[in-house]
Amino acid sequence: MKVGIIGATGYGGLELIRLLHRHSGISSIDLFTSSDEGELFSHKYSYLMNIYDTPLHKIRIEHLAKLDVIFTSTPSGVTSRLLPPLIGKGPRIIDLSGDYRLSAQDYSEWYGKEPAPETSLRKSVYGLTEWNREAVKDAVMVANPGCYPTAVLLSLLPAVKNGLIDTDSLIIDAKSGVSGAGNKPNQMTHFSETNESLSIYKVNKHQHIPEIETGLAQFAEKTRPITFSTHLVPMTRGILAAAYAPLADGVSKKQLQECYQDTYSDETFVRVMPDGPKFSTNQVYGSNYCDLQLHVDPRTNRATIVSVIDNLVKGAAGQAIQNMNVQFGFKETEGLDLVPSYI
Amino acid sequence: MKVGIIGATGYGGLELIRLLHRHSGISSIDLFTSSDEGELFSHKYSYLMNIYDTPLHKIRIEHLAKLDVIFTSTPSGVTSRLLPPLIGKGPRIIDLSGDYRLSAQDYSEWYGKEPAPETSLRKSVYGLTEWNREAVKDAVMVANPGCYPTAVLLSLLPAVKNGLIDTDSLIIDAKSGVSGAGNKPNQMTHFSETNESLSIYKVNKHQHIPEIETGLAQFAEKTRPITFSTHLVPMTRGILAAAYAPLADGVSKKQLQECYQDTYSDETFVRVMPDGPKFSTNQVYGSNYCDLQLHVDPRTNRATIVSVIDNLVKGAAGQAIQNMNVQFGFKETEGLDLVPSYI
Amino acid sequence: MKVGIIGATGYGGLELIRLLHRHSGISSIDLFTSSDEGELFSHKYSYLMNIYDTPLHKIRIEHLAKLDVIFTSTPSGVTSRLLPPLIGKGPRIIDLSGDYRLSAQDYSEWYGKEPAPETSLRKSVYGLTEWNREAVKDAVMVANPGCYPTAVLLSLLPAVKNGLIDTDSLIIDAKSGVSGAGNKPNQMTHFSETNESLSIYKVNKHQHIPEIETGLAQFAEKTRPITFSTHLVPMTRGILAAAYAPLADGVSKKQLQECYQDTYSDETFVRVMPDGPKFSTNQVYGSNYCDLQLHVDPRTNRATIVSVIDNLVKGAAGQAIQNMNVQFGFKETEGLDLVPSYI
Amino acid sequence: MKVGIIGATGYGGLELIRLLHRHSGISSIDLFTSSDEGELFSHKYSYLMNIYDTPLHKIRIEHLAKLDVIFTSTPSGVTSRLLPPLIGKGPRIIDLSGDYRLSAQDYSEWYGKEPAPETSLRKSVYGLTEWNREAVKDAVMVANPGCYPTAVLLSLLPAVKNGLIDTDSLIIDAKSGVSGAGNKPNQMTHFSETNESLSIYKVNKHQHIPEIETGLAQFAEKTRPITFSTHLVPMTRGILAAAYAPLADGVSKKQLQECYQDTYSDETFVRVMPDGPKFSTNQVYGSNYCDLQLHVDPRTNRATIVSVIDNLVKGAAGQAIQNMNVQFGFKETEGLDLVPSYI
Repeated sequence: MKVGIIGATGYGGLELIRLLHRHSGISSIDLFTSSDEGELFSHKYSYLMNIYDTPLHKIRIEHLAKLDVIFTSTPSGVTSRLLPPLIGKGPRIIDLSGDYRLSAQDYSEWYGKEPAPETSLRKSVYGLTEWNREAVKDAVMVANPGCYPTAVLLSLLPAVKNGLIDTDSLIIDAKSGVSGAGNKPNQMTHFSETNESLSIYKVNKHQHIPEIETGLAQFAEKTRPITFSTHLVPMTRGILAAAYAPLADGVSKKQLQECYQDTYSDETFVRVMPDGPKFSTNQVYGSNYCDLQLHVDPRTNRATIVSVIDNLVKGAAGQAIQNMNVQFGFKETEGLDLVPSYI
Repeated sequence: MKVGIIGATGYGGLELIRLLHRHSGISSIDLFTSSDEGELFSHKYSYLMNIYDTPLHKIRIEHLAKLDVIFTSTPSGVTSRLLPPLIGKGPRIIDLSGDYRLSAQDYSEWYGKEPAPETSLRKSVYGLTEWNREAVKDAVMVANPGCYPTAVLLSLLPAVKNGLIDTDSLIIDAKSGVSGAGNKPNQMTHFSETNESLSIYKVNKHQHIPEIETGLAQFAEKTRPITFSTHLVPMTRGILAAAYAPLADGVSKKQLQECYQDTYSDETFVRVMPDGPKFSTNQVYGSNYCDLQLHVDPRTNRATIVSVIDNLVKGAAGQAIQNMNVQFGFKETEGLDLVPSYI
Repeated sequence: MKVGIIGATGYGGLELIRLLHRHSGISSIDLFTSSDEGELFSHKYSYLMNIYDTPLHKIRIEHLAKLDVIFTSTPSGVTSRLLPPLIGKGPRIIDLSGDYRLSAQDYSEWYGKEPAPETSLRKSVYGLTEWNREAVKDAVMVANPGCYPTAVLLSLLPAVKNGLIDTDSLIIDAKSGVSGAGNKPNQMTHFSETNESLSIYKVNKHQHIPEIETGLAQFAEKTRPITFSTHLVPMTRGILAAAYAPLADGVSKKQLQECYQDTYSDETFVRVMPDGPKFSTNQVYGSNYCDLQLHVDPRTNRATIVSVIDNLVKGAAGQAIQNMNVQFGFKETEGLDLVPSYI
Repeated sequence: MKVGIIGATGYGGLELIRLLHRHSGISSIDLFTSSDEGELFSHKYSYLMNIYDTPLHKIRIEHLAKLDVIFTSTPSGVTSRLLPPLIGKGPRIIDLSGDYRLSAQDYSEWYGKEPAPETSLRKSVYGLTEWNREAVKDAVMVANPGCYPTAVLLSLLPAVKNGLIDTDSLIIDAKSGVSGAGNKPNQMTHFSETNESLSIYKVNKHQHIPEIETGLAQFAEKTRPITFSTHLVPMTRGILAAAYAPLADGVSKKQLQECYQDTYSDETFVRVMPDGPKFSTNQVYGSNYCDLQLHVDPRTNRATIVSVIDNLVKGAAGQAIQNMNVQFGFKETEGLDLVPSYI
């Protein structure tokens, strides 16, 4: 199978390369970039020397059209312009950029940019694999979920869909490692001001808010606005999201736990974990797992539902490959059977 | 003024030493320990060489009784046994340990240990300086607030007391640097398992829950149970707490902001910060500030109230010295006029 | 192929599990421990849930004798007692512990413990794969090199063997991530005292000094004592070693570079890198690479030879598996074709 | 006393502000910048709210000429143009920028920029306080030493000056926290590529090489070129330098130790530390100390001399204030009596 990556020099692109390298079904990986055409990739990133010494390709529709699958990992606002001529013309497209996850109206409002054309938006399928596998299978265009929405939706959907929690006042407090901010240096990601410090940012304004709300509406038919906060943690990888909601009347901790275990019993990549002294992002580091933990406080009857993922794997490149595996009939774990690097 | 520190080898003790060193009113600091009697302190902690080369003293009531003020920074369950004979016998006592912050019943339940004697508990005053200054002034025994409760109470009390938020479903998501776990090595604080990882721990079980609830009841007459989560962040110092609650009917963001500015307009150590791209723990690093930021989401009418402190300063040693300054008539900023180490 | 790991709960053991999981030639992995017999491994390390839910086995010779290969990753002083009855009795043994790397005399002196019996020591082959491949192939017992010696010997042997540097005053300054100190918590590895700090330790006393000297004598016939310093860096993984020596008379930078390129031209896991703005441990993070960079100062005619490895992979579990691959006729990269996690 | 800081927005400037805040002899601090004129400093750096709410001043000679002392903390190549008209015209100048530390020829060669005018260079005195106190006292212009040279010269000068080590092959391996790279974001200081990684950079090319060599020539009359390497450590503050040299004939460890103790017996800020299990940068964190440790390997008769400083304090702002104290007759520790933040 011939694969292309547009935006290979970003962190999503680098992680796709790391993971696809051990995928048994790939015959070639072509790397595309809007700059540095012709430069050897291992010259730009010397850690890839002897691994990817291939030159970067210019983005050309004719070249792209010959591939079997294209991953796009660009800043927002790029693929909505670039991809429409390619959609349905041959290659499957898996877009990691955010341009195809929201309605045109929500996109305009939250990204402050022009949305993708409606015709192309309608062909896009939201790639939250565990909840949308059948639609992904036949989609010509997959909108790969954002990192925060992956962690939040996997942790909330079973309870919301089954009416086990009251969704009127859903509070979600999420924390991410710094790689989520991408590879472009700025003051927010400058080591000396980020190290040894925890920040809260974009309170009530993060573009993943409408994505989470859209997902709750699509898969669980709930449409109330959420409260969602994001933090920058002085580490490179990992997301931990804690969601708070009252249990619905008469629901017990046991029912909640069973609902989650039932929902995910056949899913390799979602683990419903038992109670324990610690629940942490390094238990999924470098892997495609999303781990969940459920707490209920008998004093308040409120549930605290916690999830952890590696933002670059399950939150980006890993889930993208999982979607590709679904589309092309590979075992869903192909290339993704990675033991977490706990240390 | 003659000062004593019991539990000098813990992180609270070390931070007291760092700060008291530049306090103009101190003539001597005696260090006490239950072990290592006679050992030079700078032998145990070589970074104090030429600064504190004094020997560690055995804990003896006669010695302690001659001091003007005693700081106790021990594990819980120690000062409830140790201090009763000293209370009211001369030295002012400022206890950083947690033994004197809760009712006997709450203490038994949440700490799982025997509480301090009722007679000694009744003499204890909760040392949240900005809210209890007058009582602190004359107290023979100050229960210095815990690190999380300091950050949370300073951020919530103005809104709760003035009825600006609905306290029926108060959700607080707090995150701390690892120094809050103390100086005793264990798996939870082992570098290779803590670095590059964010953990949630003690969900619904943290002993600071009843302390926060007691504070809300004492200063704002609110008695509903809260939801409170704690996280371990891979950094040494700093706490960030985000509190979530609906605005009360008819309350505006502007009212909320004005209430906080009014409440703290005369307070040096509490800063109500404007909106900005980032709000982070390093803006108070090494200092006695508690910074606050207020957000209201017009979509949900919910408030997000965020606070940051240095857990070892405002959350422990700094506030303890602030209380001492109140008690002995020093300027409240004496020894505490520290510019944060943002870098 | 049936594999056993003794000392599975240490970091070397955990890394063996992570890597062997994707090795195509392994049919089973039995985990052994001196404590916690019968406990599910995923109970001890919950990040392995659904991956290694097998119980820990008691260390019994009869059980071990049925395996094809045994990896031992224990503290020093254990395998010298445990393994002698097993040597040559069936399973190949790859010892990561340090007990079989030195002569009895050096071991006594530098480890301060009783050495392994001479008869067993004589059967041991030093597993520096690139330099001792033929001997490893047939060895019943492989002494897997230490982390520092791997980085240092791979970087020095070409120059020393070919007489390109003056070895009279070899200075090696090495730095390691904290995982090298193992999984046992103590003050040296306590997060709050290790984070945001760089330490030098065991100056002139590190037990890897005689191992490096033995390696230089074995593969390059040089026997002068070296100067070797080790540092603890606030990161989990990675070693960077800088070696300093005068170039031999008449030797040029070009000759040095060519010698290294020739020596390692057929080696997948040793990369001789070009000059560049940065040379860092994250370019090999999580992988089995050892990257080398050569510098010569024309002002002093001294060479600075730098190497980086992941201490847990090429410096421990990865090289151990590479040795197993050599012994059992697998492709040497089997299970080890990992792209570094640069991010 | 009226103080001015040019380049206040850099890390050297921020650290000057932090330290000068508690200096008893300062009546005002004016902040100057080449951009953002008129902006409130606390608007740019909100952590300074209520502390430095003053506006940034435009750099004007007439304004500067009225001050008592001016600290310049700019990138290199700025003060060589800016300061000549001010030298000797009233204010004492303490330049932290590097423009006045080298001969014109060395500066051209190593900085690749035009040097300061010879007339101004001749008025400059190298501000290594402990070694040049008398000259500093009367200097109109002090070239404040670089961070690495401070750590290296304080650690080497006693041995070199007294002929206790052989300086023919001096090897210095130095490591720094990332704040040494300044406040300008770039790929080298981007969190996700700097965190969890150790780098070596500018091997044999660092502009501090000629500064160290000039210092050895000035204070110890030694003129052989050195080998000097620099590393970037994933922490914000701290430098550790290890210097390697053979002991001179007949010199003992004891002599070496005594020489250092004698040299620095009257110096508050240089501590000659005893042997110990650990020697680390956090023992001087946030303080003006330079700690030294001496090792001699009897196997090789080579000395390893180690020093640690906080690069922003003793390596920059702290030493600058120490020089100001010397010039203006303050106690040398005024404003600098800081206990290290070991935690």
